[in-house]
Order: sequence, then structure tokens, then C-alpha cells
Amino acid sequence: MTKKLRLGIAGLGTVGVGLVNLLDARHEHLLRITGKSIVIQAVSARYKSKNRGIDISSIKWFDDPIALARNDEIDIFIELIGGDEGVARDSIMAALKSGKHVITANKALIAKHGNEMAALAEERNVALLFEASVAGGIPIINALREILLGNSINRIYGILNGTCNYILTKMQEERLPFWEVLKQAQDFGYAESDPTFDIGGHDTAHKLAILSSLAFGTEVTSNKIHIEGIQSITPEDIEAADALGYKIKLLGIAVKTKSGLEQRVHPTMISKNSSIAEVSGVTNCVAIDSEFAGNLTFVGPGAGADATASAVMSDIGNVARGFFSAPFLMPSRSLISDSKTKSSQHLSSYYVRLAIHDRPGAMAAIATRMAEQNVSLESIVQRRPQYQSPGKISTINSEENSHAYAVLVTYETSEKAMRDAMEAIEEDGVIAHPPQIIKIEHLH
Amino acid sequence: MTKKLRLGIAGLGTVGVGLVNLLDARHEHLLRITGKSIVIQAVSARYKSKNRGIDISSIKWFDDPIALARNDEIDIFIELIGGDEGVARDSIMAALKSGKHVITANKALIAKHGNEMAALAEERNVALLFEASVAGGIPIINALREILLGNSINRIYGILNGTCNYILTKMQEERLPFWEVLKQAQDFGYAESDPTFDIGGHDTAHKLAILSSLAFGTEVTSNKIHIEGIQSITPEDIEAADALGYKIKLLGIAVKTKSGLEQRVHPTMISKNSSIAEVSGVTNCVAIDSEFAGNLTFVGPGAGADATASAVMSDIGNVARGFFSAPFLMPSRSLISDSKTKSSQHLSSYYVRLAIHDRPGAMAAIATRMAEQNVSLESIVQRRPQYQSPGKISTINSEENSHAYAVLVTYETSEKAMRDAMEAIEEDGVIAHPPQIIKIEHLH
Repeated sequence: MTKKLRLGIAGLGTVGVGLVNLLDARHEHLLRITGKSIVIQAVSARYKSKNRGIDISSIKWFDDPIALARNDEIDIFIELIGGDEGVARDSIMAALKSGKHVITANKALIAKHGNEMAALAEERNVALLFEASVAGGIPIINALREILLGNSINRIYGILNGTCNYILTKMQEERLPFWEVLKQAQDFGYAESDPTFDIGGHDTAHKLAILSSLAFGTEVTSNKIHIEGIQSITPEDIEAADALGYKIKLLGIAVKTKSGLEQRVHPTMISKNSSIAEVSGVTNCVAIDSEFAGNLTFVGPGAGADATASAVMSDIGNVARGFFSAPFLMPSRSLISDSKTKSSQHLSSYYVRLAIHDRPGAMAAIATRMAEQNVSLESIVQRRPQYQSPGKISTINSEENSHAYAVLVTYETSEKAMRDAMEAIEEDGVIAHPPQIIKIEHLH
Repeated sequence: MTKKLRLGIAGLGTVGVGLVNLLDARHEHLLRITGKSIVIQAVSARYKSKNRGIDISSIKWFDDPIALARNDEIDIFIELIGGDEGVARDSIMAALKSGKHVITANKALIAKHGNEMAALAEERNVALLFEASVAGGIPIINALREILLGNSINRIYGILNGTCNYILTKMQEERLPFWEVLKQAQDFGYAESDPTFDIGGHDTAHKLAILSSLAFGTEVTSNKIHIEGIQSITPEDIEAADALGYKIKLLGIAVKTKSGLEQRVHPTMISKNSSIAEVSGVTNCVAIDSEFAGNLTFVGPGAGADATASAVMSDIGNVARGFFSAPFLMPSRSLISDSKTKSSQHLSSYYVRLAIHDRPGAMAAIATRMAEQNVSLESIVQRRPQYQSPGKISTINSEENSHAYAVLVTYETSEKAMRDAMEAIEEDGVIAHPPQIIKIEHLH
């Protein structure tokens, strides 16, 4: 007799509905691969009678996802509710405690409670899988687990948030201001009505936390990540980046340094020639600098119901075949609790854009302050707005026209030296606005 | 007591030596992940006393790899000998028959004997893994197994041979003739002294056969692949491609069509804007058009001892954890024996370069012959060599200077219509050389 594998699905939003359809379409296929008949035993969602375009009349219904998680008739609990606390967390904990396998697409939850959940899963010898939590359709978590068997990783980074990449791509292509593109993205459904979580870099940080924990064997947490969002990026920055041979991307970066594991999310100047520079729109990518397998890049759709559901399916297939071990590859007791590196110690090249009061000696004062902090300049471009080609920069108003603009590119320096130099320059009263500072990252 | 997993390694070339070093460096790491102590129990190679820079004095030596494969003291037989027959094949068959797991990097062997070997591995319930056989450090075979749980695949294609990609990249960058670049590649060690296997497309075909079997659930064989090499590509083609917005790459392509699974290896015109156009030098890539996970691209080193050894390591780690099932994902008895599609039915756009006798009516005759076969032209560029910018095209000799050159780009048409039109044009005596014909592939 064919063995059954019984699923309990909590949450029937677009991903949940996509998964129900996918399981139906792929039932025979999965049976051939896994030797098991994978069936949806029970579901739970907020509203039972909502029209979702799928027939769930023959599937057992639970109003309470926690009761579903504990139910003895299911083998795998699939959490698609969302949120990093409350019923999502409680139902997963209940499922693990009852010895059920757990699959989730919930990056916020894994970034916050992954350690505790992994320890419990290992104790009960069940799976806790979350392929869908990072970069949607790209099978990056499984790929990382493969790569890590034969490699140590020096750096992992990526474009992990489709909303931000869409906005930055549009700003680049159409030279529009941030808020105008954000509005468009909201109209197209590429950005939430409250976009803070995406544009502030927090969603990227959750995904980076998960990748980083796997890649470096550290306890998962997003508390150790320095986060900057993309709200401050202006068309002037996009324009200047272009002229300097860069594109601006929101990256999540985790890198081994002498002072520990550095984890950062920030708008980043990357060379137009780097392998991820062409990743545009809502597409995601992850790149890995590894010891033996070299530089690897993975590109694909970062979100969407279908891509996410297909990632959940690969987790289901792996549970069905018994292909699971410790959720973060290493046993959770051996994961390292790495301290947050001091951002002041971070070494980087910087792009700096300054609105300079147009009077004699201003640039000399700036150059002096940089020199005092041993910040070497690779290039300086100074220009008055009236010399710019018309129409190229759309946000300069008459007030700003009384300033000259300077764009400086520094050689590698510490963040502390940069901040100190900028503070001195502001105190000198030679600049009209706080400086715009964007890190430059050297990629393959 | 910690369980041991005992390896027998046959073949101590650069990959074998790389693997010995890697196993030594990663022993503790693998122990933590797999819970097993992975040890090299025995090795076999042609010359025992050769200096390889590693100490194998404490490891049991076998002169005969078949005896090693059968030895009861090993759990996994690792074949790094090479060749699609003889001792490589015999030793793997002996290992499988003795109930040993097998790991190999040998694409030629898997492409030729994969079906028979997979059936035997399934019968004995042992692993037959070959991650290192395709695209070196890119974990593409494992990624495919993941993706296929939740997706059907419409097309898989890639740059699978570093030698060819190096040559085409150099031809593009330096506008040098094929044979001159090949000579350089041989001097740098990027091409074999007998390069036929690489430049003729046969190595790419072996790798495509393996990817294709996994992606489409078909029996593995390279006999059903249409193969063209890169020897005929000239600087004129590179130049014309550039002007038309294309790059020329040697691709392996497997695609579902109405007339069956089409598998081809040939120089291909791809848009400069496609995601794989920037993959240059010896780097490899694989791209997948999938049903639910969308378009996925994987880029990384295609060869090299370290990358290959690290791929073998991931297979070892998977055997250690029991993460293996049917070698081609589907049970071998359910793999489909697909017939070779007729190349005459293949639909494509074409690039055609003709050396036309410079006399009235020649182009009219050509256009008429194309029209007779219903081949529509998207663009025609005709020019006389003397109008070309000096130095750009280096291979035109005085004899050829008496001809005009025409570059035609067709809309989608059948290969049969193209061949018939070209035959008629040759018979008309209006062209001085056989036409150069390169397929155009539309990629994401």
C-alpha cells in the first residue's frame, strides 16, 4: 500500500491557495519521486467561507491553527500565516512539540525565533524547513547546504527585496524621485501601502540573517545587522553613480572580517560590470564567495505566489524522502553567538555627495577635514547646477541652485574616520545639507 | 562511538589530490554536519610512487581500481579516473554490484552508461551521485532535483564548456581569428592539446544529456543531441553579431516542443541583454525556464580541481546523511525513451552571412530563393569590404576582397526551409563560399 504523507496548511492567502493548486497538479509526479501520496488533510484560515477559487469542501477545517498544528492526523504542519509573533509562532511551537514536521515561508519569524525552533526540531527529530523564506523561487537555502559541505564561505550578499530593487531600477531608468516611483510601485502592487518594512531594509535584514546563519554557522538574529534603507537616495545620486560607472542597489551583505562577522543592509554602489548589476526590477539574486567552489551567483524571482509555493513544495518533497537534518545545517547547540561588529570599524570606500555653499575656500575646507582623518580621495567632481544638462536632474529647486555640488569618492577608510570628517565639515558651516554617504562594495 | 564512512578513491589526478586535501581540511566540519567520521580507506591510481604533494602512506593502496571497488572495507567508491569505457566503467559497475555507493565526476561515462548504472544503483539501494559532472562548482544537479519537486521545466540551457566560452570571449574582446585564440588557450592550459572534444561541442553535449535527463525525465543519452562546434566562427561573425546587438556563445539547449524534446549544442546568437550574455571566460552558467519558479540562472566556475572536488564533497555529505534516491530523480524504469527530433523541423531565427559575387542581380537572386521557401527577412546588411573601417576585420585577404558581404537575419523559420533556400542559392552560383548559418535563440 502506498504510504500517505498528510499535510496541515495554516493560512490560505495567495501562497496557500497556490500551494493547494500545485499539490493537486503535481500529485502523481511527487508520488513517483517520493513514493508517497501527499494529501492535504486539514486547513486553517481566518474565514472559512471566503471564496478562494479552490474547492476545500473535502478537507478538514480548523478555526484554530494551533489545534491544527497539534492534530494527530497530520504529519507536516505548513505555516503560511505570517507575522513574527502570535499565532504563527505559537502554532509552529505547538507543531514541533507534538512531533510534527514544520515548513514555513515566514522569514521574520525564522529570523527572530529560528534558534529556539531549530533546537526543538532537533530534539524531536523532525524537520524545520524554510526554503521559501529567502529569495522565493531561487533554491538558495538548499544550495547553501550543498555548498557548505565542501566549502567555507567568505562573503554572501544579495538583492533580497523585490520592492526596493524595482524602485531603484525605475529611478535609474527614468530618473524619477524616490517618492514618485514608490507611488507607482504601490499602484502596480509591487509595494505595500505601508512600505516602511521593505524600503527601510528590514525585510532584507531578515533574509540576510537566515542566509548568514547558514553560511557562517552563527545563531540566527537580525539584531546584529546594521540597517539603512533606500529612502534617502535621490536622482542626483543615481546620476552621479551612473557617471562614475556604478549602479545603486540595496544589498544585504555578510562578510568575514578580522573583527568578526560583519552584517549590513544598505544602499550600495556596485560596479556596472559586476555580475549582479544587471539584476533589475523585482528579480532577486544571491552571490557567494566560497573557498573552493569560487564565486557563485543565483538569480531568479524573489516573490510571487507560484514561486513561493514551488519552494514550499521542494521542502515537502524533502520531508517525504527523509532528506532533512539540523535546520541550520550545524546542530543548534554548536551555532556561534557572534557579537555585533562595531560599524565604526567597518572599512569601505565611500561615495559622498555634498551641497556646498558657493564661496571661496569651501572645497579647500572640505579637503582639509578629509585629510585630517586620513581619508584619501580617489576622485572629486564639483559642479554648479546651471552647468548641468537641462531636464536631467528634476528635483533641484531655486533655493538649491545657490549651491555647488561635489561628489567625492574615497579610497578604503573606516566608517569612524568618515563620520568624524563629515561632522567637522558640517560644523565648519560650508555645506547646506547633511551629506549623502553611500558605501561602495567591490564585487566580482 | 562515532560512525565511520570509508571512502575508496580511484584516480589521483588534480581533482583526486584536491579531494584528499579537502577531506583533510573539512574532517571536523563534516563530522559536525553528518555525525560521521569520513575517512579515506584506500586509493588506486596508475603510479604508486608518483609525487603528488600529499602523504598517502597511511592509506591502503590498490593497483587495480576494480579490486578497490569490490573491497569490503569501503562504503563509497569515488571514480575520478575518466573515460567512458574501460576501467572507469568496469570499476563503477563492480562497486554497484558489491552494494557500494558510487560518486563520480565523469560526465562522458554518465551520459553513455547512466541508465544502466542508475538501474543497478536503485536495485541495490545505493547512491549514484554525479554533482561534479556538470558545471563544476555550481550545485546545479542538486538544484534541479529541488526545483523539479514543485515544477515542470520548459527549457534548460547553458554555457557548459569553459574552453569554448574562453575562446569566444577572447575572439569578441580582441577580434582575433579562432585558431589564433585556440593556440593562446592551449598555451594558458585552458584548452587540451587535442581540443576536438571541447570545440566540437561533444563535452557540452554530455553535460546537456545529464541535465536534460533530470529536467525532462528522459533516459540519458547524448545520441539524440544535434551538435555543432565553434570552429567555423570567424571575426566577421563576431563583428556582425556585435553590430546586431548579439553575442555568440556555445550553448547546450534542451527544450520541450510540439514535436518532442529538442536537444541541441551549437554556436548561438543571444541578445546582449539576456541574463547570460555577461558570462565570460571560463565561467559556466545554467538557466532554467520553469513552470512556477520562473526563470532561474546559476553562474559559477565550470571546472578546476578545487571546484570539482567541492562538488564531490557535497555528494559525500549527502551519502553520509542518507540523502539520496533514484540517480535521475525518477525511478529509472519510468524514464522516457524520447526519440531524436528531426532537426529539419526545428524552428528558429537565423543569422546568415554570405560572400556574394559582386555583380548585378546577385542580391535579388538571393532574396528570391529565400522568398520561395517562405523565409522572411528581418534585416539585410550588405557591404563591400573596402567600406569597412580599417583594421577591424583582419582575415579578409585580397581574393575575398572581390566579394560583397551580406548579413541576413530571418524571422522564425524551419531548418528545412533554410537549408533548401541555401542550397538553391549555392546552385545559382551567386555566392563565393558556403554560407555561414548561426541560430538565434531568444532568452530571458
